[in-house]
Amino acid sequence: MADPASRPQVVIVGAGFGGLFAAQALADSPVDLTVIDRHNYHLFQPLLYQVATAGLSPADIAWPVRSILRRQKNATVLLGEVTGVDSQAREVLMGERRVRYDWLVLATGARHSYFGHDEWEPAAPGLKRIEDATEIRARMLLAFERAEAETDPEKRRGLLSFVVVGGGPTGVELAGALAEVARRALARDFRRIDPRSARIVLLEAGPRILATFPETLSSIAQRSLEKLCVEVRTGKAVTGVTEIGVCVGDNRIAARTVLWAAGVTASPAATWIGAEADRAGRIKVNPDLSVPWKQRIFAIGDTALVMQDGKPVPGLAPAAKQQGTYIAGVIDAAARGRPAPPPFRYRDYGNLATIGRKSAVIDFGWIRLSGFIAWVLWCVAHVYYLIGMRNRLIVSIHWLWAYFTFQRGARLITGTPRK
Amino acid sequence: MADPASRPQVVIVGAGFGGLFAAQALADSPVDLTVIDRHNYHLFQPLLYQVATAGLSPADIAWPVRSILRRQKNATVLLGEVTGVDSQAREVLMGERRVRYDWLVLATGARHSYFGHDEWEPAAPGLKRIEDATEIRARMLLAFERAEAETDPEKRRGLLSFVVVGGGPTGVELAGALAEVARRALARDFRRIDPRSARIVLLEAGPRILATFPETLSSIAQRSLEKLCVEVRTGKAVTGVTEIGVCVGDNRIAARTVLWAAGVTASPAATWIGAEADRAGRIKVNPDLSVPWKQRIFAIGDTALVMQDGKPVPGLAPAAKQQGTYIAGVIDAAARGRPAPPPFRYRDYGNLATIGRKSAVIDFGWIRLSGFIAWVLWCVAHVYYLIGMRNRLIVSIHWLWAYFTFQRGARLITGTPRK
Repeated sequence: MADPASRPQVVIVGAGFGGLFAAQALADSPVDLTVIDRHNYHLFQPLLYQVATAGLSPADIAWPVRSILRRQKNATVLLGEVTGVDSQAREVLMGERRVRYDWLVLATGARHSYFGHDEWEPAAPGLKRIEDATEIRARMLLAFERAEAETDPEKRRGLLSFVVVGGGPTGVELAGALAEVARRALARDFRRIDPRSARIVLLEAGPRILATFPETLSSIAQRSLEKLCVEVRTGKAVTGVTEIGVCVGDNRIAARTVLWAAGVTASPAATWIGAEADRAGRIKVNPDLSVPWKQRIFAIGDTALVMQDGKPVPGLAPAAKQQGTYIAGVIDAAARGRPAPPPFRYRDYGNLATIGRKSAVIDFGWIRLSGFIAWVLWCVAHVYYLIGMRNRLIVSIHWLWAYFTFQRGARLITGTPRK
Repeated sequence: MADPASRPQVVIVGAGFGGLFAAQALADSPVDLTVIDRHNYHLFQPLLYQVATAGLSPADIAWPVRSILRRQKNATVLLGEVTGVDSQAREVLMGERRVRYDWLVLATGARHSYFGHDEWEPAAPGLKRIEDATEIRARMLLAFERAEAETDPEKRRGLLSFVVVGGGPTGVELAGALAEVARRALARDFRRIDPRSARIVLLEAGPRILATFPETLSSIAQRSLEKLCVEVRTGKAVTGVTEIGVCVGDNRIAARTVLWAAGVTASPAATWIGAEADRAGRIKVNPDLSVPWKQRIFAIGDTALVMQDGKPVPGLAPAAKQQGTYIAGVIDAAARGRPAPPPFRYRDYGNLATIGRKSAVIDFGWIRLSGFIAWVLWCVAHVYYLIGMRNRLIVSIHWLWAYFTFQRGARLITGTPRK
């Protein structure tokens, strides 16, 4: 093995699914790696909506990056904000500080996007970070509290109305969980309002919800939501969002709580390196995930636009993980002076979304499942992919408990809600 | 039973131990009661230090007040801030809103006190609310992160130094838990610093720590702390606190993280009703916990100064619970037109504090325990007194897990630390 002092330096920006899998796959490579993230934890984003709806605590779905990489001797973890990249000098900039790289992996993820209407954000928070989730949790719980104290019936109606914008998996899961909270967890807790009368509307601009699933599963999901008394409205885009409601086409829906699950935009990594990006800010990468015209820089996960068979690879956790592992192979081969692996190919093992307490839809390609059995599979898959045995155990207990008692364990209004 | 519309109205301000026990003990009384709190949860404060030291999540030790009182038909819960009391009109003021009472119970608890040095608060946060705990957790974890990134050895030393001011149970438990975090949980997670080299100082102005315990237990606790490499310094008061350290007498201790566990002051309830209070803001109450010269107003828990055998009843959870139950008896008797119960007497069943991972001291009066057996008893007692079976289960799992793996489950830096 080469002298450690002269080992190539790999810098990975972002400890989400892509960055973390790249780091772990490089454990035995003759390189030193530095993982930079602005948070000290890896977040299991697929379950973030459960924090937002008071089912789980943040610590149940987040794990310190340091702790995950503790035993990986060639890995160093840095907490901090990346401010730019000097691709001439091959350095990552963190304010004053500079971190040298021989290979750079950009795995910085995405934020939600308001399609040019950033003024909607204060009234319609999205769900990407832990702070978003606790903010949404506080707003949702406060809406019921304020409705209980409100005497004007119209204002009370507005407080008990919730709109979720965006009919992808996150929107569907949020709307389903909201319905369960209102109809089950809070049902008997108030004296003046009946939480079961809450109105929950799911808006989707496209013709159907869960557009990436087969049509049959979309309609099953819609029926499951309607059984939970969620109004599903498709085919019209949101044209305005304020503190008191949403405009959809010519209609107004009065609602004091609006949640945004409609679109994402990549982090500003493309601008750091001056790379070509699509409208959503994703860097257009080569088939080996390298950035064109930029030596030794790769982009993966939600930061990258990876085309396959004429379509973009979806921005899902499994895609990010596969890209992280792939890129580790590319770097490992280069570090050892071996030939590069063949171009990246995304393998789609399936697509799943859950609707409320005991329904889900799964599309494995060769088989489609829905209902209770799909829901059980969904639970097992998500517990399995959590990092750390303790988190698996705790999340399982929370879910079993919630299943049998209808209660939710994290109904706390903490912090100071922005609104 | 009387017509519900004409039933006497009891208002309880504060859903801590005192207020909650009063509310629950009034379940079968011919009264209607309103519990007002500015948080939507009852907080199990004795374990708050474990949230501050990344062992537990907020939701593990907090439970919605609504949920606790869900089945109690005569109870209504209001979320909101009390701004004053109109004792002539018998109304509690919540901004514009007024809540009528026939009996008023003030159970508003305490905040930490800086003995006239409120300017120390930004540099030395205290531990009373959930937000305090997550703030302290973020500061503690950030100190290690910043030390890892720091190249100046002196600054690094300051970042790795922690001072806890106040040698009561909270200070002792914080210092012990901090030592465990540094010496065990983080031990192998960093590459440039050795968290085990962290300096942890516990300062107590009085002659010994745990002053309310027998002297033998104080010295045992001090030896246990010293075994965990905590420096215990007694007999000198803190004379200054800044962002970079603490002054004790003529000495300076350089430390970037200072935690305040030295003193408490009652909430402003005394000023709402213009009642006589001691220096710590506690309302001096009659032997039946009523407020002198104020009809139908009672004060309990940390809000009240209750004298017994010439000494004040201590500000502990059991005392607040006993007072809550007692006051429910007084109100119940009055509502039924029966004779009032005899004056309140605090029954001291014991006093306990834990030091780190497997040591504790317990003073039952008739027997004194220390070491591992005391620690097991401490764990059992605290799990037993938690509200809700799910919380008991989850906390037990977290503790067992931490005991065997030395890991801590909630190592998240969230929110924006004030500093």
